[in-house]
Amino acid sequence: MKANKLERKMKISKEDILSAHERIKPYIHRTPVMTNQSINQMTGIQFYFKCENFQKIGAFKIRGGMNATLTLSAEQLKNGIATHSSGNHAQALAYAAKTLGIKAYIVMPKSSPQVKVDAVKGYGATVIICEANQAAREDALNKVVAETGAEFIHPYDDYRVITGQATCVKELLEEVPELDVVITPVGGGGLLSGTCLGAFYFKPGLKVYGGEPEGAADAVLSLQSGKVEKAPFIETIADGLLTTLSEQTLGIIKEHISDILLVSENEIINALRLVYERMKIIVEPSCVVPLAAAMRNANLFKGKKVGIILSGGNVDLTKFGTWFPAK
Amino acid sequence: MKANKLERKMKISKEDILSAHERIKPYIHRTPVMTNQSINQMTGIQFYFKCENFQKIGAFKIRGGMNATLTLSAEQLKNGIATHSSGNHAQALAYAAKTLGIKAYIVMPKSSPQVKVDAVKGYGATVIICEANQAAREDALNKVVAETGAEFIHPYDDYRVITGQATCVKELLEEVPELDVVITPVGGGGLLSGTCLGAFYFKPGLKVYGGEPEGAADAVLSLQSGKVEKAPFIETIADGLLTTLSEQTLGIIKEHISDILLVSENEIINALRLVYERMKIIVEPSCVVPLAAAMRNANLFKGKKVGIILSGGNVDLTKFGTWFPAK
Repeated sequence: MKANKLERKMKISKEDILSAHERIKPYIHRTPVMTNQSINQMTGIQFYFKCENFQKIGAFKIRGGMNATLTLSAEQLKNGIATHSSGNHAQALAYAAKTLGIKAYIVMPKSSPQVKVDAVKGYGATVIICEANQAAREDALNKVVAETGAEFIHPYDDYRVITGQATCVKELLEEVPELDVVITPVGGGGLLSGTCLGAFYFKPGLKVYGGEPEGAADAVLSLQSGKVEKAPFIETIADGLLTTLSEQTLGIIKEHISDILLVSENEIINALRLVYERMKIIVEPSCVVPLAAAMRNANLFKGKKVGIILSGGNVDLTKFGTWFPAK
Repeated sequence: MKANKLERKMKISKEDILSAHERIKPYIHRTPVMTNQSINQMTGIQFYFKCENFQKIGAFKIRGGMNATLTLSAEQLKNGIATHSSGNHAQALAYAAKTLGIKAYIVMPKSSPQVKVDAVKGYGATVIICEANQAAREDALNKVVAETGAEFIHPYDDYRVITGQATCVKELLEEVPELDVVITPVGGGGLLSGTCLGAFYFKPGLKVYGGEPEGAADAVLSLQSGKVEKAPFIETIADGLLTTLSEQTLGIIKEHISDILLVSENEIINALRLVYERMKIIVEPSCVVPLAAAMRNANLFKGKKVGIILSGGNVDLTKFGTWFPAK
């Protein structure tokens, strides 16, 4: 599709992303971009890692959560914000609410790790525990919204959130304008669709790829069929990437994406080991899916400057023993 | 002792450290200084972490190893360099030799983890495996030095090495001139004695502390008696801190140090968890001994600006399971 036609059609403009960035800047970190000589030598690819594991709340999700919250009117803010999430979006809204002195209601499935529940409570949010299925989560959320008048902010199926996530690749391009490619993990597609828009507006030639686990392969199927599909099976340590795309995220992604690349569990563990051993930073398994994808498809990226968004670093340390078992 | 009298007595001058820094700069990273709001809030101390885990070879040891190597004459360089070490000093010399295109001979006890032997060999050094005791290490080293004419560079009992390590606190003070205190781990005392000298020359009012595990408590005893003592027992996960001080390092340390503070194994694990979970970086257990010491002695440091040298990040990932066992 021609750029000018596409631009008219798009619901998020360049100005939206620029204002979102100005809006959230006082509340987020400008995360560093790291490089690593050993990984470059090993792969023949020049990687630039945007370290969102060092972001506030330990993940990029604060960008979207904070942007959505800051666009609410004083009237809306009065009643607080709400979501259902067992992951980083829960912490993002809890942190945003604490920062702005408003209320947050977070519905969490009872399967959520205690450490995540504690983190959300630690920011002063009200946690509502529900059964661990989609219907129970939505019921509990609808109930709390009805009772409190809080504003629901979806983890990714929300243009305000997608616009916030788009600021990440904008920063990366400000540091590395000569980038050829950017790869992000894909779960619900908030980061990937935001990155697609950021690339489109701030460096039109930039190729965007998504990395997805074979054990949660919904996005690759959705891209093929053109509509939101479920994964044939779910089995991956990349536990941030289990959700399906939404109409809104798929709509943006299919206009802009070069491809979605699958990786195996072994490839994820190997990439995780590489980042831990060589870069000395802690990232979530979901984060290294793009690195694993680049290494598996080295022919596509050899000699190129490839940006990787390391999306977060909130790990349960007691899982290390299963990821890297003693021999 | 008055400063001017002390300066006359000292074998390492301010100019030595300044030249060492210029000498090694092209070969090392200027490592970042990180801060962490949660750890500051939790402790009431303002911490500045000098991240030598991001240094070349993953540890500060490259500073001393590179400085010592670069001060050799062309005649000496021709025959290469040698040491005995199972740890980061081995990698430092191997890397220095590779960078300068000379030979390195590294005597390693047969108890060394294969991953460390492989890393040293990966830099092209010749590895000589010996029995795991001090006499065998020295015998093997003497033999290789006699055969090759290589220059022996001790891991810490060497003024050229100590001078190199002093550049780390110099960089930290350049970034945070208002620092009140600096704390380093203490094993053989190379980093601590270098830090003492750096403080003395570049910020005379800066207090210097050492952090030492209760399970390797030789430095605290040596400071009391004034001569090099052995630890009453060795049992600690801080495996970079098992060696005793030397005459040279103790000599410098006892002139300058405020105190050496002991920490328990539990305190080390807790500090390690804090750095992994909050700062999202990988450091060796030895590194967090200073943080653990500051937290145990919060009364000494409350409200102060405290520099912590995070000395390295070379960990065996398969040990994570024993440090952070599943509940």
